[in-house]
Amino acid sequence: MTISNADPRRVIADLKELRSFSADANGAQRIAFTPLWVQVREWLTGKLAELPVETHVDAAGNLWSTLKGRSQKSLLIGGHMDSVPNGGWLDGCLNVLGGLEVMRRIHAQYGENAPMTVRLVDWADEEGARFGRSLFGSSACSGHLDLEELRTLVDKDGVGLPEALRQVGIDYEHIKDSSRELANAAAYIELHIEQGPVLLDMQLPLGVVLGTYGVERHAVNFHGQAAHSGSTPMNRRRDAFLAAGRMGQEVYAITGRHGGVSTIGSCTTKPGIVTSVVEDCRITLDQRHLDADKLAALLADARAASERFAQEGNVDVAWEHIWNIEPVLFDERLRRFCEEAILETCGNVHRLPSGPLHDAAEVARAGVPTVMMFVQSLHGISHNKIEDTKEEHLELCVAAFDRLAEKTIAAFA
Amino acid sequence: MTISNADPRRVIADLKELRSFSADANGAQRIAFTPLWVQVREWLTGKLAELPVETHVDAAGNLWSTLKGRSQKSLLIGGHMDSVPNGGWLDGCLNVLGGLEVMRRIHAQYGENAPMTVRLVDWADEEGARFGRSLFGSSACSGHLDLEELRTLVDKDGVGLPEALRQVGIDYEHIKDSSRELANAAAYIELHIEQGPVLLDMQLPLGVVLGTYGVERHAVNFHGQAAHSGSTPMNRRRDAFLAAGRMGQEVYAITGRHGGVSTIGSCTTKPGIVTSVVEDCRITLDQRHLDADKLAALLADARAASERFAQEGNVDVAWEHIWNIEPVLFDERLRRFCEEAILETCGNVHRLPSGPLHDAAEVARAGVPTVMMFVQSLHGISHNKIEDTKEEHLELCVAAFDRLAEKTIAAFA
Repeated sequence: MTISNADPRRVIADLKELRSFSADANGAQRIAFTPLWVQVREWLTGKLAELPVETHVDAAGNLWSTLKGRSQKSLLIGGHMDSVPNGGWLDGCLNVLGGLEVMRRIHAQYGENAPMTVRLVDWADEEGARFGRSLFGSSACSGHLDLEELRTLVDKDGVGLPEALRQVGIDYEHIKDSSRELANAAAYIELHIEQGPVLLDMQLPLGVVLGTYGVERHAVNFHGQAAHSGSTPMNRRRDAFLAAGRMGQEVYAITGRHGGVSTIGSCTTKPGIVTSVVEDCRITLDQRHLDADKLAALLADARAASERFAQEGNVDVAWEHIWNIEPVLFDERLRRFCEEAILETCGNVHRLPSGPLHDAAEVARAGVPTVMMFVQSLHGISHNKIEDTKEEHLELCVAAFDRLAEKTIAAFA
Repeated sequence: MTISNADPRRVIADLKELRSFSADANGAQRIAFTPLWVQVREWLTGKLAELPVETHVDAAGNLWSTLKGRSQKSLLIGGHMDSVPNGGWLDGCLNVLGGLEVMRRIHAQYGENAPMTVRLVDWADEEGARFGRSLFGSSACSGHLDLEELRTLVDKDGVGLPEALRQVGIDYEHIKDSSRELANAAAYIELHIEQGPVLLDMQLPLGVVLGTYGVERHAVNFHGQAAHSGSTPMNRRRDAFLAAGRMGQEVYAITGRHGGVSTIGSCTTKPGIVTSVVEDCRITLDQRHLDADKLAALLADARAASERFAQEGNVDVAWEHIWNIEPVLFDERLRRFCEEAILETCGNVHRLPSGPLHDAAEVARAGVPTVMMFVQSLHGISHNKIEDTKEEHLELCVAAFDRLAEKTIAAFA
């Protein structure tokens, strides 16, 4: 048997080629369901066509590319080509292009006779940048997406999610048919940039991901009374922004007590003009923790604070559930394979939870043994144009991820 | 000489007719430079055409209607037909329609032989709802509008002010030609709803306005660093919303120290998505005081607080001047006439400053003797669909305003 190796330089070249047409001076613009995203998909399909794979888009807009092996049992390798607006060049696409290279290596090594089938999946709308709902494609596939809940989501221009999907040829009513893609799934592996500063601070290139944080995601709507900015005495105001602004500091205090992370990512005001007290102020709150009880405490404390601020400011408050997911722990055997692959590649490893969400969590919830590998992020920054990873670390991660794939195939075929 | 009286019932009927086609379930929608505003102007022109007046629109979009008298010297009566979005039914148009009724009375009483010329002006874009710049038409007329400063203003859809004006037939480069309209101005009077709770709390229908608050209006831009909401530890964040939110509470504390009023009317966030720490947060701040030194103290303290919060949150802050006006005290003789007119009409009077801006301040700054009369606002609320005034108070205000006009004509002719 020929022994082939994945070629990390080819992955880096692919990433740079992708960046050349899908980023601008503000960063990556691969936002799901936009014309540029469609173009990125076409480019990816062209790369895949160099292998003897079968490629199709499923009912939820996920792109699947299958390299058949001796067994129908499949190793899934997943990532996402979509980015946030003004995002980083590696977020999501490193996984897909790394996975593509693993498929190239398997084809070079085994030809038509790989011990098991290998499938690459590009999940649709991992980021949720447009509708505030992450993991769209993978949760449709895992069965955890609530059709009724998402039906009413609208983007900032008032376009509904079903209509936006229709425009890219996806029928909202049938997205859960995507679940049939998991029929022969034996294992799922995903490589991702850390997007945080943990590996950077430890000066380690690679880490095994223990699991993903649980998430509580809500909008908090404060409702006061519009009133003229010149004629309304301060003690007569019912100022929705006053209450919402106080939440900014409070979520830091709450997170200091319980751990995890909390983010107010958006604030909108109505009427939102310079000459009126704010009547309606809407903030989004995203809270994450690896411990389910502590996540519940983060949420309960934020809710209580919002009610206290509302009462003190003589405004109303209403919470609107956007999305939540429980903490997910990854498969123990695959975690061990991942650790071995990293140790064999660079001699040092760290185990860490993932703060960001990943499609891997949805696949794990669907019962497929799952693990993720992290590579160090420079600046500890993601979702930003300055997101970056040293090229030597990119090379190490592709090599280690390929080892993980081979160990998984050997064990799960 | 026939003695005629203004008919307050006619003003109320006109106001209700106006409301019937220019308001919806959310309130008045007479936003300047929109098709509905143009329609309102056409309706007003139709009413004016029942009098032997000359009516035209000046270079800044202000509508002038002139009832010639024996002298070229003119009594100006001013108001504005434009409203904020979802505004009240009386704001601005009470002045115009009250002034129309005064002209009807003068014509009925004097025919072609009024002691002086009377001119009604409907100022363009008093509210500044679309571009954040109040008193557009009157400041173009007074000469205090800074052409270079306003040239770059854009609305929330990115349309520039000069382009928006072009769409309603106004050439931005020549708006200051409006100043020739003040050539023969001898006095200016304006009737307005109080838009605050002072007369309501004192149970008085009418008040003499001493002058208008000075205003400092700025945008405060906090600049931090976008970062992933799941992977960025709380102590590593450079969160622009955290700093901006703290300003909400702080402006109440600052205003408690110095008096006046301060309003954060708008807050916008970028990238403004649920999965990212806020990189850019922009708030608008509107501060008002009748005392110039205290107004300066409000501004200085807010600036210092923003710098402190920026430093503590490891973000940057930049202030952007939107507009300012110094406090304006009204003409002493006209204030006395106004007080007499009110006392003769209802027996009680109160003297108060105006928190809201009014076009009267611009006319006063142009050197024309000026005064305003306030009528009580129910709920102490304006810029809102619930804005209202008792009909008996509307009747009193028209009668008193007509007396003020007559006293002014007698003294200034």
